[in-house]
Amino acid sequence: MNKILLRDITLDGIRKDILIAEGKISKITPHQAGPCPVQDGTETVDCSGKVAVPGFVNMHTHAAMTLMRGVGEDMVLRDWLDHIWAIEKHLDEPFIYWGTLVATLEMIKTGTTSFNDMYWFSPEAQKAASKMGLRNLTSFTFLDNFDREQASHQRDVCLEMFSQVPSWDPRSTFSVSIHSVYTVSEETILWVTEFARKHGLRIHIHVSETRKEVEDCKAAHGGLSPVGYLDELGVLGSDVIAAHCEILSDEDIEILGRRKVNCVHNINSNAKLASGYKFKWKELSDAGANVCLGTDGAASSNNLDMLEAMKTAAFFQKAWREDPSALPLKALLDLATVNGAKAMGANTGRIEEGFDADIQIIDTDSTFFLSPGPFLANFIYSAHSDCISSLISGGKFVMRDRKVPAEREILDGGRAQLKIIENYIKH
Amino acid sequence: MNKILLRDITLDGIRKDILIAEGKISKITPHQAGPCPVQDGTETVDCSGKVAVPGFVNMHTHAAMTLMRGVGEDMVLRDWLDHIWAIEKHLDEPFIYWGTLVATLEMIKTGTTSFNDMYWFSPEAQKAASKMGLRNLTSFTFLDNFDREQASHQRDVCLEMFSQVPSWDPRSTFSVSIHSVYTVSEETILWVTEFARKHGLRIHIHVSETRKEVEDCKAAHGGLSPVGYLDELGVLGSDVIAAHCEILSDEDIEILGRRKVNCVHNINSNAKLASGYKFKWKELSDAGANVCLGTDGAASSNNLDMLEAMKTAAFFQKAWREDPSALPLKALLDLATVNGAKAMGANTGRIEEGFDADIQIIDTDSTFFLSPGPFLANFIYSAHSDCISSLISGGKFVMRDRKVPAEREILDGGRAQLKIIENYIKH
Repeated sequence: MNKILLRDITLDGIRKDILIAEGKISKITPHQAGPCPVQDGTETVDCSGKVAVPGFVNMHTHAAMTLMRGVGEDMVLRDWLDHIWAIEKHLDEPFIYWGTLVATLEMIKTGTTSFNDMYWFSPEAQKAASKMGLRNLTSFTFLDNFDREQASHQRDVCLEMFSQVPSWDPRSTFSVSIHSVYTVSEETILWVTEFARKHGLRIHIHVSETRKEVEDCKAAHGGLSPVGYLDELGVLGSDVIAAHCEILSDEDIEILGRRKVNCVHNINSNAKLASGYKFKWKELSDAGANVCLGTDGAASSNNLDMLEAMKTAAFFQKAWREDPSALPLKALLDLATVNGAKAMGANTGRIEEGFDADIQIIDTDSTFFLSPGPFLANFIYSAHSDCISSLISGGKFVMRDRKVPAEREILDGGRAQLKIIENYIKH
Repeated sequence: MNKILLRDITLDGIRKDILIAEGKISKITPHQAGPCPVQDGTETVDCSGKVAVPGFVNMHTHAAMTLMRGVGEDMVLRDWLDHIWAIEKHLDEPFIYWGTLVATLEMIKTGTTSFNDMYWFSPEAQKAASKMGLRNLTSFTFLDNFDREQASHQRDVCLEMFSQVPSWDPRSTFSVSIHSVYTVSEETILWVTEFARKHGLRIHIHVSETRKEVEDCKAAHGGLSPVGYLDELGVLGSDVIAAHCEILSDEDIEILGRRKVNCVHNINSNAKLASGYKFKWKELSDAGANVCLGTDGAASSNNLDMLEAMKTAAFFQKAWREDPSALPLKALLDLATVNGAKAMGANTGRIEEGFDADIQIIDTDSTFFLSPGPFLANFIYSAHSDCISSLISGGKFVMRDRKVPAEREILDGGRAQLKIIENYIKH
């Protein structure tokens, strides 16, 4: 793998030279003007006027659903699900492969270098993500609808898939998903948890997304909330990635904090589907939980843009807390980068020597950055993802000057899949 | 003025040819394939695969403040104002001219063709907006701080400015602003209203932006809210553009509706400064008010992107009303286009024969539009303003393929102004 030298790039307000070798940030030095002092075989990239930001870590998505966005707009959740399920019945491996390619193309164009996926036909998803050069935590998803036969079948498929993991790309990590407490039986939840702990796999689960989910759980499990119920089953721990965590009691927050659960905020999806918006990032964080950010699937959110998700998250926090200082810039960036890295167990999310080289290169030559304010404010609150001119993932350029290899092929392949599912769309 | 033929452009899902002449949409016909049937002197533009959308109408901003964004981030309103006022004391004509150029450059890049401005040194603002080819409603702003001398001085300056209006560009319209009920005396409010009505000028005013404004007004005016107080003074009418209208009682809504006031929602600013977010667009609209959308100044919002404002507006409406069908796509587009046109009294906001030619040309060749859903959902909820490839304002291209004439000069000129105000920034 070639070395890359990012010359004269601004990092935390200071002009630096960043040397990338073997996929890692190998050396950061103050910028040296004058002739380039590098050895043979190192590619030198002039980054003057540009700013380095860690690649985003999207901690909850359903990547291939990107091809289903816009289905069932302006509808209540129940009708929206009918539209989605009508299509999902017909999904197959090519759909997942091309859908994940389209998703990763969108992630690259919006600065994401790592993502946590929950969907079907996972080997196809990891194949697509690996082809595009993104780190991914890709799960087998359990959703047995309380049916013993389905549960048994899914365990078999999961074990078979797990046996193939050694052949996966090194940037792909296998995990297991429990879809939710309202779609997965207790027996399966216990089996998955034991299986995950035995093999050191992360557990990905939707938790307390809607009020209905919480109320139904309480009715079914002697007054226990989804968090209380999962805790009683021994599921919760620092290896659990709990998506949404939108409807929480004080007791839920205490449990999630004590168990050091990774709680993923998905504000665009929660707001758009009207599931909730008073996410308790501060309370969870203070209690000991690791709070991260995700986009959810594009069918509900409606894109995979983490920069936009950060902005929306801050707007909602400031608005409902009636406090313009709520969720300040530095905390916001942490949610979208280093906290996600921690949840994934990945050595990324910071631009420091020894970390994996996952770097956004930001072009500040636009009105959005013409301001006396701090870079982070301009980046998060004013600019859009098209300010991300280039992206390095695992030490390799996956986008240069807004160009992603194979973009044309991916858009055309995605469009061909859309033609196939057209017949299954409810109108 | 040359004629322009937009060939094979999609309008409401159908492929059309749109002929633009004398600044207007002169003819819309089904797309004719084959050799181009136009006369000499008509510029033909191939728009195949692209979609036409009306140019946005930004109904409330303080354009030149664009150069102050990012000042006082994550601060409560009181501290933020201290930071802004510390700079505003030193503003001069070149700052307004260059600040408005930067603002209009940003508006063009984000699809806006008309805007309603409230700031200082208005002749400079209209000069900049005209240079860039945007329709503008530009006001003299009254803010007398209840000081009779200031009031008298401002009346003189306003009259002098009004006498110069005949020399303004035809796309610039003069109006008067009453800053707010908490900064302008009753005597001045009455004078401005009479002056505006006498000369057929629109009145632009901040109304009920914060809870404090409403409470203070009630204390000062025998229990009357800002809306009640302004109505009692005879100010409210269909020529009034009331920005914010965030904190309203049922009675306020009834009055604003009955008086057919133009109420401008500025969600990004309101959310970020934590002023409020439960904007009653539906109730106001049902009562008879004309509801529009604005970005507010970039110092609070933090940009002038109407596409983003639409998205944020929809997210908040769906979230706080707990109804994902709240503020549907078509209504959202009307808020940002034709409703604003009505408020300005401008013949724009629709792509129909006879309307002014203010047209966004949208490039749909990206992941954001790769979807089985409706174009409007992809445009508003998934894409960003960089999908706006070209923009026609008043029948002329003001942006082609993302390139705006004089962009380099404007960015450099704006940067020079930033250097000057640097000394006045509080740290």
